[in-house]
Amino acid sequence: MTDNILDAISFPKDLKKLSMSELDKLALELRAEMIAITSKFGGHLAPSLGAIELILAAHYVLNTPKDKLIFDVGHQAYAHKIITGRRDQMYQLRQLKGISGFTKRKESPYDVHDSGHASDSLAVALGLAFARDLDGGDEDIVTIIGDAAMSGGLAFEALNEIGSEQKRMVIILNDNEMSISPSVGAFTKYLSLLRANPAYFKTRDLLEHRVQGNLGNLGNAIVRAGGQLKDAAKQLLVPGMFFEELGITYLGPIDGHSIPTLITTLRHALSMDVPVLIHAVTKKGKGYSPAEIDAEKFHGISPFNVSSGKSPAKQAPISYTKAFADQLLLEAENDENIIALTAAMKAGTGLKDFADTYPERFLDMGIAEEATVTTASGMAIGNKKPVVCIYSTFLQRAFDEIATNVCEPNLSVIFAIDRAGIVGEDGPTHHGLFDMSYLRCLPNMKIMSPSNEAQLKDALYTALRLDGPVAFRYPRGSATGMEIPEQRVFLEPGKSKLVREGSDVEILALGRMTNVALEAAELLEEQGISAAVRDMIWLKPLDYEALKEAASKQVPLVTLEEGAKFGGFSSAVLESLSDQGLCQPVLRIGIEDEYVSQGDMNMLLESVGLSAETVKQKICSFLDLHK
Amino acid sequence: MTDNILDAISFPKDLKKLSMSELDKLALELRAEMIAITSKFGGHLAPSLGAIELILAAHYVLNTPKDKLIFDVGHQAYAHKIITGRRDQMYQLRQLKGISGFTKRKESPYDVHDSGHASDSLAVALGLAFARDLDGGDEDIVTIIGDAAMSGGLAFEALNEIGSEQKRMVIILNDNEMSISPSVGAFTKYLSLLRANPAYFKTRDLLEHRVQGNLGNLGNAIVRAGGQLKDAAKQLLVPGMFFEELGITYLGPIDGHSIPTLITTLRHALSMDVPVLIHAVTKKGKGYSPAEIDAEKFHGISPFNVSSGKSPAKQAPISYTKAFADQLLLEAENDENIIALTAAMKAGTGLKDFADTYPERFLDMGIAEEATVTTASGMAIGNKKPVVCIYSTFLQRAFDEIATNVCEPNLSVIFAIDRAGIVGEDGPTHHGLFDMSYLRCLPNMKIMSPSNEAQLKDALYTALRLDGPVAFRYPRGSATGMEIPEQRVFLEPGKSKLVREGSDVEILALGRMTNVALEAAELLEEQGISAAVRDMIWLKPLDYEALKEAASKQVPLVTLEEGAKFGGFSSAVLESLSDQGLCQPVLRIGIEDEYVSQGDMNMLLESVGLSAETVKQKICSFLDLHK
Repeated sequence: MTDNILDAISFPKDLKKLSMSELDKLALELRAEMIAITSKFGGHLAPSLGAIELILAAHYVLNTPKDKLIFDVGHQAYAHKIITGRRDQMYQLRQLKGISGFTKRKESPYDVHDSGHASDSLAVALGLAFARDLDGGDEDIVTIIGDAAMSGGLAFEALNEIGSEQKRMVIILNDNEMSISPSVGAFTKYLSLLRANPAYFKTRDLLEHRVQGNLGNLGNAIVRAGGQLKDAAKQLLVPGMFFEELGITYLGPIDGHSIPTLITTLRHALSMDVPVLIHAVTKKGKGYSPAEIDAEKFHGISPFNVSSGKSPAKQAPISYTKAFADQLLLEAENDENIIALTAAMKAGTGLKDFADTYPERFLDMGIAEEATVTTASGMAIGNKKPVVCIYSTFLQRAFDEIATNVCEPNLSVIFAIDRAGIVGEDGPTHHGLFDMSYLRCLPNMKIMSPSNEAQLKDALYTALRLDGPVAFRYPRGSATGMEIPEQRVFLEPGKSKLVREGSDVEILALGRMTNVALEAAELLEEQGISAAVRDMIWLKPLDYEALKEAASKQVPLVTLEEGAKFGGFSSAVLESLSDQGLCQPVLRIGIEDEYVSQGDMNMLLESVGLSAETVKQKICSFLDLHK
Repeated sequence: MTDNILDAISFPKDLKKLSMSELDKLALELRAEMIAITSKFGGHLAPSLGAIELILAAHYVLNTPKDKLIFDVGHQAYAHKIITGRRDQMYQLRQLKGISGFTKRKESPYDVHDSGHASDSLAVALGLAFARDLDGGDEDIVTIIGDAAMSGGLAFEALNEIGSEQKRMVIILNDNEMSISPSVGAFTKYLSLLRANPAYFKTRDLLEHRVQGNLGNLGNAIVRAGGQLKDAAKQLLVPGMFFEELGITYLGPIDGHSIPTLITTLRHALSMDVPVLIHAVTKKGKGYSPAEIDAEKFHGISPFNVSSGKSPAKQAPISYTKAFADQLLLEAENDENIIALTAAMKAGTGLKDFADTYPERFLDMGIAEEATVTTASGMAIGNKKPVVCIYSTFLQRAFDEIATNVCEPNLSVIFAIDRAGIVGEDGPTHHGLFDMSYLRCLPNMKIMSPSNEAQLKDALYTALRLDGPVAFRYPRGSATGMEIPEQRVFLEPGKSKLVREGSDVEILALGRMTNVALEAAELLEEQGISAAVRDMIWLKPLDYEALKEAASKQVPLVTLEEGAKFGGFSSAVLESLSDQGLCQPVLRIGIEDEYVSQGDMNMLLESVGLSAETVKQKICSFLDLHK
């Protein structure tokens, strides 16, 4: 046994030489390594700590990358990254040009799919199993999925088909008793029942041996009776009927931190020719007490002090999230019809205080964006004022429900779209860059993009006083730090605001890009260029009059947005100009047609050309061209 | 008893005076009425025939519209429409300016929500129950949902939360043993097990009384044993553990065509203070033998002869669907990696022959668009060539999976988007008008919109020979009837085709609108206007060169598309012109920013301004303006 086992592990094959006690020691070393890494750079510490033994056992048993090990969500896979040749790169985890916080195909042949959004791994596994069986392949397929992700509709749809197709694969249910937030939903309650029942033993095999022993004469009778009674015995003694009834063989619950148990159970599961689910109970944050005590805080954490577990004090400006949440609480005080809904983003969307103050008017539906939006439509039919708080990237899951259950019947559902724009370290699957394009095409939808925290509060104030669906999008992270006026302003739909006069060029800006535009205008001023800046506020309806006026001045126009350039704000401006018969040179600044990588938010904004300096440069080149 | 009972029924309250035998007779009369209506106008006959008794029993027991009766999908609700004051209007069912084939809030206070897309009713019911309980209301909430819809992820997400919240409501599972297509999925198999097992009796109450009687001494022992053994007895004797384990009380299965049984069971369910599911077994097409024998054909039927059940022979031109399906079969012969997937649209997307010929390379995942797309991504990772065949409107359900599981990792998944554009009688929830906007914003996605059946075959041929995600969209119904060349053409990405020369105006057209453009050009010719027509073929990448060339001629441009005008094809043209620094007057013809009603497809195309005549008129006015 070497002093440091991890040093001897370059790839998963190196695990196979280790003894059980060496594997246990390796798990300890991995814990220490991960705590060191995330304390410097932040990251998803608690989930990754909880999954170490699952990952070691899986790689020990499987022959990856020939065998496929799939991670749902993927942010629990740090141990996997470290032992698949990326240990050195972990110190650039989630940084620009570093490695991703999720599994990525481009990064390693050991990363089976690009993970990020929850509940997708079962369908990916089904697709791989389907392909394998067509090719007559013999590789094993194993997915690791958390209890929260298992309750998403996408996962259920896949489970339903896996049970029907009976494709050979193993699903490891990583049940950490608490997803991002303490879990919600009947399915989670069901799992906790499975965990708690003393009649449940480690594996089905064990169970079957014990039928007679434990139940004495009645057990003997049941075993002898056959037929229906066999089913009864099975239902009495074998937990997981939810899965069994869908055609998935259930093994568990087992201790998800016991490597020998995991190895034995996984080998047993792999020997079967059917889909098998292993219910492994783990502890989020396992092995680092600050994370065990507050797994929600350590789910996705900023850099922190290892001994105290504390992160450096936050900067002075409040976050957009907080500004929104404070206003919602204020509005809810005066209007008892307001209901807040979210989909496993209670803390992330700032709803904790709301939930504590108005528990009966708060609904966290878990990872279930689709049902959350449709439930809100039912509340609106019931004359309530539902406010759906979901990140831009996850709201994509509910696109059809927004279109069909909210916009078509023109119901008054409010969408508070947090994390709109560049989000930073979570990278391409998590940036909120498409919402303007996918929401703008829906009739009846009204969309705001407030430019600062005061306007964000005004946006909520306004949305609550309008009929029909209203969405407003706002970024992750710190707001501007401005003084917020006490009095709220009703933002008249389709009215923009000229925030800076100028005669050489007019910048039409949306959201926090208005502030970038103002900075860029200062830089342009230094070069003798006089730039007007217009805070558009509304993406839909757009301020047609203002565009007409701007065009009438015959100055070149610039659009500036934090979103995809195809179909978003700039397209709306071009459509409006064209429909008014106006021909005007327009410079479109936004996110180009490619996925944006991970990294520090400000560095990313710079790298995609959305900093004041790059905006200034682009405008200078454009004006040169149109002199 | 009057000779005709239906004549005496204006509203649901009138039902309450009827005896059980009169209700049975009324059911017969409703059947005859529905057959007469749909034979003339087409419609969803089989599902509506199967749900008559459910609807009569529900309205008999409930006090609608104060109590809420919610229909999932809604096309099984014809009996509901007839007895809620719309009998006279049924003869304009699904027609322009007539009543909808689904429930619509605008139409009647008895229609609780705008139905259309499957699996939404449970979440709507949850929202209504949440609102009711906040208000301290006492109304009952009942939903009717089919077995196929129950397996959708949206329904499961809602079920999970309903079980957790324990909101008082009743879910009637209308199990017709066959959804649109014969059902797929483990859940469906599970339901059929429930139906088949002789140990299952009519209601839980009955069951509990029979525990001892049926099992003799062992039964006595079980009942006496208590604790775990009670659970065992329950699991042995009470079916529906899948639901019970989610916290939903299960009653059934019961005969869904026995009105007295339905009434008794529903009353019993409503007396409980928890969510209850009634498993009612019905027969699709019940009471009309052609529909009972071929429920798939009579699911959504064109006008037919009542005595034979036959529809008039179809017109000569093959449908776009058939052209696509034939080509797919041909390609599959030569490439064993091709897999076809759909989500309960096997017949609708023309995949029957494919499924029969290559059963091992065909996967119908049921109402599960999300998992279907993600499973396809797994197949692509496994080096297969998955072709996902889903209607435009239903593909909305999988927007996030397309973005996150396919486009971000740039996987070679092909999307064959049937029913793109105006679909006709199914109306606003079913037109495929948003796909160009919601797909165009996704990086890596390539999108074609072929203009005729030959080009549709070329589009598939091309997509199979490209890397990365490729989508092509094509309309419902008859193609052009052209002679289809034997030889397939590779459609070079981003290359358009000038199909008519002209000097006064250039029409840039996409999809079948190219044919409308050509007709309009003929009409313009008669007025001395020379119009060029360009078949763009590709929405993304767009033919930048062609736009440059067209703009260089300084002729006004017209865009013509069958899709939403916000963010779609015309926006792409404006973006491209602007990015090239080109200023050109552009007339954008497409679907305005509002939901399009139901009706005959050609009448709708006319009414939204997409007929040759209206296009001609718009172009004339536009040219007058730009003289």
